[in-house]
Amino acid sequence: MTQTKAAGPLSGILVVDLSRILAGPYCTLLMAEMGARVIKVESPKGGDDARAYGPYVKGKSTYFASVNRGKQSIALDLKADGDRAIFEKLLAKADVVVENFRPGTMEKLGYGWEQLHPKYPQLIYASASGFGHTGPNSKDPAYDMVVQGMGGVMSITGPIGGEPVRVGMSIGDIGAGLYTAVAVNAALVHRLKTGEATKVDIGMFDCQIALLENAVMRYTVEKEIPGPLGARHPTIVPFQAFKTQDGAIIISAGNDSLFVKMCNALGLSALATDPDYKTNALRQKHHGKLEHTLETLLKTQPTAHWLAIMAKADIPAGPINNIEQALAHPQVAARNMLVSVPDGSGGTLTLAGNPIKMSAFDDPKTRAPAPDLDADRAAILSYIGG
Amino acid sequence: MTQTKAAGPLSGILVVDLSRILAGPYCTLLMAEMGARVIKVESPKGGDDARAYGPYVKGKSTYFASVNRGKQSIALDLKADGDRAIFEKLLAKADVVVENFRPGTMEKLGYGWEQLHPKYPQLIYASASGFGHTGPNSKDPAYDMVVQGMGGVMSITGPIGGEPVRVGMSIGDIGAGLYTAVAVNAALVHRLKTGEATKVDIGMFDCQIALLENAVMRYTVEKEIPGPLGARHPTIVPFQAFKTQDGAIIISAGNDSLFVKMCNALGLSALATDPDYKTNALRQKHHGKLEHTLETLLKTQPTAHWLAIMAKADIPAGPINNIEQALAHPQVAARNMLVSVPDGSGGTLTLAGNPIKMSAFDDPKTRAPAPDLDADRAAILSYIGG
Repeated sequence: MTQTKAAGPLSGILVVDLSRILAGPYCTLLMAEMGARVIKVESPKGGDDARAYGPYVKGKSTYFASVNRGKQSIALDLKADGDRAIFEKLLAKADVVVENFRPGTMEKLGYGWEQLHPKYPQLIYASASGFGHTGPNSKDPAYDMVVQGMGGVMSITGPIGGEPVRVGMSIGDIGAGLYTAVAVNAALVHRLKTGEATKVDIGMFDCQIALLENAVMRYTVEKEIPGPLGARHPTIVPFQAFKTQDGAIIISAGNDSLFVKMCNALGLSALATDPDYKTNALRQKHHGKLEHTLETLLKTQPTAHWLAIMAKADIPAGPINNIEQALAHPQVAARNMLVSVPDGSGGTLTLAGNPIKMSAFDDPKTRAPAPDLDADRAAILSYIGG
Repeated sequence: MTQTKAAGPLSGILVVDLSRILAGPYCTLLMAEMGARVIKVESPKGGDDARAYGPYVKGKSTYFASVNRGKQSIALDLKADGDRAIFEKLLAKADVVVENFRPGTMEKLGYGWEQLHPKYPQLIYASASGFGHTGPNSKDPAYDMVVQGMGGVMSITGPIGGEPVRVGMSIGDIGAGLYTAVAVNAALVHRLKTGEATKVDIGMFDCQIALLENAVMRYTVEKEIPGPLGARHPTIVPFQAFKTQDGAIIISAGNDSLFVKMCNALGLSALATDPDYKTNALRQKHHGKLEHTLETLLKTQPTAHWLAIMAKADIPAGPINNIEQALAHPQVAARNMLVSVPDGSGGTLTLAGNPIKMSAFDDPKTRAPAPDLDADRAAILSYIGG
């Protein structure tokens, strides 16, 4: 493949990555996708925990492969003098160090922010921990599901009147990874403008609270505790899944004019002028009646029939795709949202692509593989002159 | 409040914000929180659609307030010459323009990337649309739930064997807003280093595919279509909610040593050495049997009893909090994750804080209010010398 453009907006940025499993590694995956050089510093005893998570291909974790492609690996024992010297040479060259240890771990190693900052004034320090570096629960252990449960998102996810469920993707980890990436890039902007490096302190639990967004506002304003709403939006009506003859359709009529257009497209023009449905607030008040009327009609024909009608009328609507259907959607290929990555044993893995598309940079169809533990030792030692 | 530090890493950055509702405004909310000056350019006909979304306090949308605090507003008709001249003066001063119109809308106004870039070479152009600016579905309409349904996350969220549910927060919009913020900050890094501005083209649907993360890998590797798993992790065992005497507890024993510790803490040491449970792969294979054994025990005592035992043994565990319980957690106050924002009528709103904590910047307990439509016209005109 001919590279005619720079590799990415973070070209030339060196990230030393101590993070494991998902939250930190997802942040550094995005940075690698944007052109940064990411060096994973892993424990010689098996490395990143995620190397043990299935499914496996030829004995290697594809879970690990999916979030660590395009990175390099060196195994260092941060309690051994020789390895510490190598690590410190890396830090001296690095722009960012990312870690997701329990708070206190880096300090015990002598590598906390307060210890590193005077020695490496250029170094941005990013931490993604369960509860952040301050507060009474700072040192509590956490994984994705723990913060999903504690942070409230499970309590608003699930069938109406039913038990809370986990968000099917790892919003606890990936949410924190995304906020960390936003913050690290902002810290790079600040350092480029002022020369000052900063510590970034992200708590997974904090991110869950931030992601709740309008559920926070609804509770603090209305004092009612929101519950799970099945497949319906809490405040916009109609904005939900409806049953059809052969499945379901999602229709999102997000404002008054879309509501009128939808009613007309469905041949229900009387609804469009019904005073009970004139505004979103009124539709919210009468949503049960409205839902019943709409679903009674929608159940008479299959999903494809209604999708065609909605498309013709230019109303936001869609099916509920399973993963196979979602990935087979023509837009996925058109947008390069599945990329090929060598599995390290002659085969290839198909993984999610990068949703960050930029005119100044290529978005290649292939990515470099995830590294075996310590695979890049020689190259890294040569790079730091060790 | 005494400001002893700079306002944020994006201080001095001017964002001209044409975006409406949630995906774009969430990106620019993060930028405002990080110190950027965000000027909302709204339609004189009612402005941002979200101004009509409830709940309302004193006639004003708190939905709007929650994602637009700390921004400024000017109402401009981008089809009227005088207002276009004002808009163009803003663009000349801006670092970033953010929009989430349907692809083609900006081009019709004469403000597409190809039109703007030669005139304003410093200007980063960020678009967050439903399906991105390329591909067969580029111009299709989309809202949060449409991409949640099409992108597959709903198909893996819900009770086992039950119907798919919406992720309780707006992952379609907020996910896209987060990737857009990551990208815009990276584009600022690139521009600071090279002088080159870029177009950022984010599709909400692409972001859903990216967020699926290991579900993509599981499907492409195993060819099995993942379904909803209730409150259980798809590949890590045990990593799920269990019923207790009075509710539920989430236990995340994410690796072999945590599993052994958990068994011992629960007085089930025989499990710790059971060959069926020796590795995560084996626990995954035998998860039904393991879940039954654990839940049988856990149902004999209330959640608080088990949480104390897990805390003592330092095993990641937690309750399933509702929104009230989540927001009342002492860590929320300690981390300033609820902030006060004037409601514009003498009262205050309590909204989610900023999870991005940086040592170089303050994280004040209050934020500036969301602007009324056109509220900052005079200040903005004076700023651009109009």
